[in-house]
Amino acid sequence: MIHHGGPEDTEKADEEINRWQWDQTIIRGGNRISLSSSVPPWWVHFMAAIRIGIVTVSDRASQGVYEDRGGPAIRDCLTEILSCPWEPVARLIPDEQPVIEETLRELCDREGCCLVVTTGGTGPARRDVTPEATAAVSDKLLDGFGEQMRAVSLRSVPTAILSRQIAGTRGRSLIVNLPGKPTAIRECLLAVFPAIPYCIDLLDGPFLTTNEAVVTAFRPKK
Amino acid sequence: MIHHGGPEDTEKADEEINRWQWDQTIIRGGNRISLSSSVPPWWVHFMAAIRIGIVTVSDRASQGVYEDRGGPAIRDCLTEILSCPWEPVARLIPDEQPVIEETLRELCDREGCCLVVTTGGTGPARRDVTPEATAAVSDKLLDGFGEQMRAVSLRSVPTAILSRQIAGTRGRSLIVNLPGKPTAIRECLLAVFPAIPYCIDLLDGPFLTTNEAVVTAFRPKK
Amino acid sequence: MIHHGGPEDTEKADEEINRWQWDQTIIRGGNRISLSSSVPPWWVHFMAAIRIGIVTVSDRASQGVYEDRGGPAIRDCLTEILSCPWEPVARLIPDEQPVIEETLRELCDREGCCLVVTTGGTGPARRDVTPEATAAVSDKLLDGFGEQMRAVSLRSVPTAILSRQIAGTRGRSLIVNLPGKPTAIRECLLAVFPAIPYCIDLLDGPFLTTNEAVVTAFRPKK
Repeated sequence: MIHHGGPEDTEKADEEINRWQWDQTIIRGGNRISLSSSVPPWWVHFMAAIRIGIVTVSDRASQGVYEDRGGPAIRDCLTEILSCPWEPVARLIPDEQPVIEETLRELCDREGCCLVVTTGGTGPARRDVTPEATAAVSDKLLDGFGEQMRAVSLRSVPTAILSRQIAGTRGRSLIVNLPGKPTAIRECLLAVFPAIPYCIDLLDGPFLTTNEAVVTAFRPKK
Repeated sequence: MIHHGGPEDTEKADEEINRWQWDQTIIRGGNRISLSSSVPPWWVHFMAAIRIGIVTVSDRASQGVYEDRGGPAIRDCLTEILSCPWEPVARLIPDEQPVIEETLRELCDREGCCLVVTTGGTGPARRDVTPEATAAVSDKLLDGFGEQMRAVSLRSVPTAILSRQIAGTRGRSLIVNLPGKPTAIRECLLAVFPAIPYCIDLLDGPFLTTNEAVVTAFRPKK
Repeated sequence: MIHHGGPEDTEKADEEINRWQWDQTIIRGGNRISLSSSVPPWWVHFMAAIRIGIVTVSDRASQGVYEDRGGPAIRDCLTEILSCPWEPVARLIPDEQPVIEETLRELCDREGCCLVVTTGGTGPARRDVTPEATAAVSDKLLDGFGEQMRAVSLRSVPTAILSRQIAGTRGRSLIVNLPGKPTAIRECLLAVFPAIPYCIDLLDGPFLTTNEAVVTAFRPKK
């Protein structure tokens, strides 16, 4: 636990955060967590520790040739989806397989991200190597993510079959490749997100909650 | 051919089985095999030799912590589906990749199962290694099985994309991973079974027939 | 760009070509190109250089036991689809993995085919090794092709899940496995073709145009 002041200050701040979280859960009406205003500070800290990696893979954006639009689109979409406190850990890197691999390892292993989403580099062109990097650092691949994202994108564009997006687990983290275009990012993220909180549960990660007006997290009854 | 009595007894018993099979085929109205009442005894034996491996992969069930419900669910579902005589070869094993691999090899190579179905161990968690074991012992993987099972399960639960079920061939045997929950087992088995008898034909295995009220085996015309 | 005259001639020729291309795009409104007699010879040659490999993989057809029906079915279907000039480079070979691999390498690397389509050898039987050969020579696999072809075939036959068709890129070429039966070939080729011209663009290949009454090539706006 990290202290940012004397014990009293911390407790006061914690209480405020708790109330805010509690209120928010009530208001949003979804996925309620048994939080009372007297929850211990470690719980607040545990909640605050939900970190999500956002990796933009693009030669040109990383060189400053044009602005990164994918990363902010993912951040905005996650802000809309998630009802729990979380913090983004953003990276903007070129289409180099070793760099992508190292970034994914860093975000999963050292930055403690329970979820890492990438944008860009999933097409058939020579420089597109995001899926290769993802596969290389993953313990297990989850084919269902790519299948569903392509199925959803196919409703909009027939070229969805060219996308090689995959998802995989690395330790306690889930890595998901998203497409490069902001509209496609939102479409794909909304399509797979209902399964993501339960997947992170199965990986012994933090308990993600969603804004039900946007996405309903599904957790099967035991 | 195994003899269980003198030549005369055997022939009498064989004849009875033949008639029963023949009658059954007539009654059920489906997937007729060119059997006449004068078929030779080896044919009866060949028919009786349809063995199907049923493998429950579960740490807790194999330790006796709780009862295996997946294996019996598969047996019941196959009894409902198949109109030909068959016998189950059941195994209950922990989520250990070497044990799963050895069990699959045993059922395919030494027990002569034309079909081996597994339940359990296909999720994203660390202990889930059934697809890894299946891939390791398979000659060819058949991606269409996993795709279709996930597509069918997606109608019920969005977490279907977390399932890593695969299917593969090993020599003359087909191995299919099913989910862990009894309701999902039935749903997935009914979805893919129409293609299984023809697949086993292509692997030079025995001729499976189905109860058409439950599943219609599809065999393309040459 | 290849120069066939002095700098001035070239500039003039370029202008003419631009005008012609522009006019045609306006007039035809679609992807159709037909060549007029005023285009320079190198353009005709460039257009004529769209070569497509058609590989029939079949032990029996290659031995002359029966006629190859798959190869001609692909050629007829491509003739119907494409509005640009193209030439087929046909091969009829047995189900031998090294032979298939060598044929794919030859068509991609030495014959300059931007697209190579195969028919046959994608089932679960022991002799079916076309996907294995395709994977072995490919730089990247495009799972979306197999998924979509199986999804489309599933509407006709439940045994579509037995098909192991894949697609992959090799350098500037796209390789696509199609099924063995002429009716299934057409169904699958029409299903994936809308994405093929853009895929070949991404691989820096020639600009394929389609007959819109049959297939509309989709190219996303930048």
